[in-house]
Amino acid sequence: MEAKRVILALFLLFLLSKSSAFPSRKSRVHKPCKRLVFYFHDIIYNGKNSKNATAAIVGAPAWGNKTILANQNHFGDLVVFDDPITLDNDLHSAPIGRAQGIYVYDKKEIFTAWLGFSFVFNSTEHKGSINFAGADPLMNKTRDVSVIGGTGDFFMARGIATLMTDAFEGEVYFRLRVDIQLYECW
Amino acid sequence: MEAKRVILALFLLFLLSKSSAFPSRKSRVHKPCKRLVFYFHDIIYNGKNSKNATAAIVGAPAWGNKTILANQNHFGDLVVFDDPITLDNDLHSAPIGRAQGIYVYDKKEIFTAWLGFSFVFNSTEHKGSINFAGADPLMNKTRDVSVIGGTGDFFMARGIATLMTDAFEGEVYFRLRVDIQLYECW
Amino acid sequence: MEAKRVILALFLLFLLSKSSAFPSRKSRVHKPCKRLVFYFHDIIYNGKNSKNATAAIVGAPAWGNKTILANQNHFGDLVVFDDPITLDNDLHSAPIGRAQGIYVYDKKEIFTAWLGFSFVFNSTEHKGSINFAGADPLMNKTRDVSVIGGTGDFFMARGIATLMTDAFEGEVYFRLRVDIQLYECW
Repeated sequence: MEAKRVILALFLLFLLSKSSAFPSRKSRVHKPCKRLVFYFHDIIYNGKNSKNATAAIVGAPAWGNKTILANQNHFGDLVVFDDPITLDNDLHSAPIGRAQGIYVYDKKEIFTAWLGFSFVFNSTEHKGSINFAGADPLMNKTRDVSVIGGTGDFFMARGIATLMTDAFEGEVYFRLRVDIQLYECW
Repeated sequence: MEAKRVILALFLLFLLSKSSAFPSRKSRVHKPCKRLVFYFHDIIYNGKNSKNATAAIVGAPAWGNKTILANQNHFGDLVVFDDPITLDNDLHSAPIGRAQGIYVYDKKEIFTAWLGFSFVFNSTEHKGSINFAGADPLMNKTRDVSVIGGTGDFFMARGIATLMTDAFEGEVYFRLRVDIQLYECW
Repeated sequence: MEAKRVILALFLLFLLSKSSAFPSRKSRVHKPCKRLVFYFHDIIYNGKNSKNATAAIVGAPAWGNKTILANQNHFGDLVVFDDPITLDNDLHSAPIGRAQGIYVYDKKEIFTAWLGFSFVFNSTEHKGSINFAGADPLMNKTRDVSVIGGTGDFFMARGIATLMTDAFEGEVYFRLRVDIQLYECW
């Protein structure tokens, strides 16, 4: 009798242990193992702002050039960037890292882009990088891209990053809010 | 006696449960947790087809230009695309999403490319995105790229996408069949 | 009594089994499930070396061109490459695969790049591909990028690749050592 009760307890423990070890694959609602919110600031070179610019058009379609974003919703413009990352929405706050990579406007009818980039940290708070890729339909209030890997403090990270346009000025400055939710933390 | 038999059963259950929870890491043959087949259609801008074009050359080598794919197997041509995705191989079928991103021809001796792109869905059937990256040796009948992440319905997806050139017309239109096999589904 | 001892043994086995199945998520020190070291060789087209060149500038900023790397630490130069991979550091060793993809110099103040590329193997030793993405702060002795996926022999691989500049000659040739550590092997 007692043995049976122990077996039952053990069995329940077993079930519990399994499900708690991998909750995210079982439950419908996933909780991030890490969450980080940052802002980054993109100033596109327009021929006049070489001192402040953090990004430049380096690819353009046949009908475009490299100092003015192309018409048809910038379709075909490929931009390289090295943008400061800040903890709040102030461009002049001390940067805690750099957002580096490319984006390309990829649709004629509306503004939408494809992104491949990294957050690079080398401060007391964070050392390492987070790598991202995904579609960015700019006109949506929020849009999700994938966290496809990480190094250093973010070793082997995977997750989702929710982008939000926090501000923009003409076609020169825009600021993105990034809400990073990691679901695989090592 | 009875206790022992229960223990044995429990032990077998335990083994079974473990192996069935993570079959793919144990067995040599992996079964996808989700499989999807689509077609997408790429019409490259050539200076005359701006109405129909879904893609444009935006980067080219020193010896190339942006309205004709470069010689030497298009080495160095970087193309941005926003291609309709369909369920069958008919360009005129109702698109159920868009394939958006870049490819670049990366070899002088034969046709081969490198791809970074996303499938973007916003229909009743699928909402969300699937992100891809990998080498595309075009001359092979099939070639595999990686599913590096997903969002929405494809939250945290990983897997393999097998590409197949289903048709092409000159150097303007080509149609790819994509067989997506996800091995990580959340 | 005996039953209890068996239960205890079973319980210990259970704990052991769980922890040994996923050591990397529990322990602080992670051991790769596979490790590979390669070299690859990049010869950038400079207008004179078209025979030997394995890479070409295909995107450049407004102030640059495609036969000379731009000033300001090449900021904005986007390079497409198809580089031989060798087992040792000799450019003339038999290549065992190709490194294919893009890199882009993304900072004005120092040399740093963003990489998206694949290793493509089709030999008796390795068949398949490994896909990479990440930031490459060139001036650091070593820098880590992410292994974001793989196909064939490297089916579903994830991990870290540590890059090291092994040699360079002017702004035409450079050789990278890549130490690939996979932490997810299927």
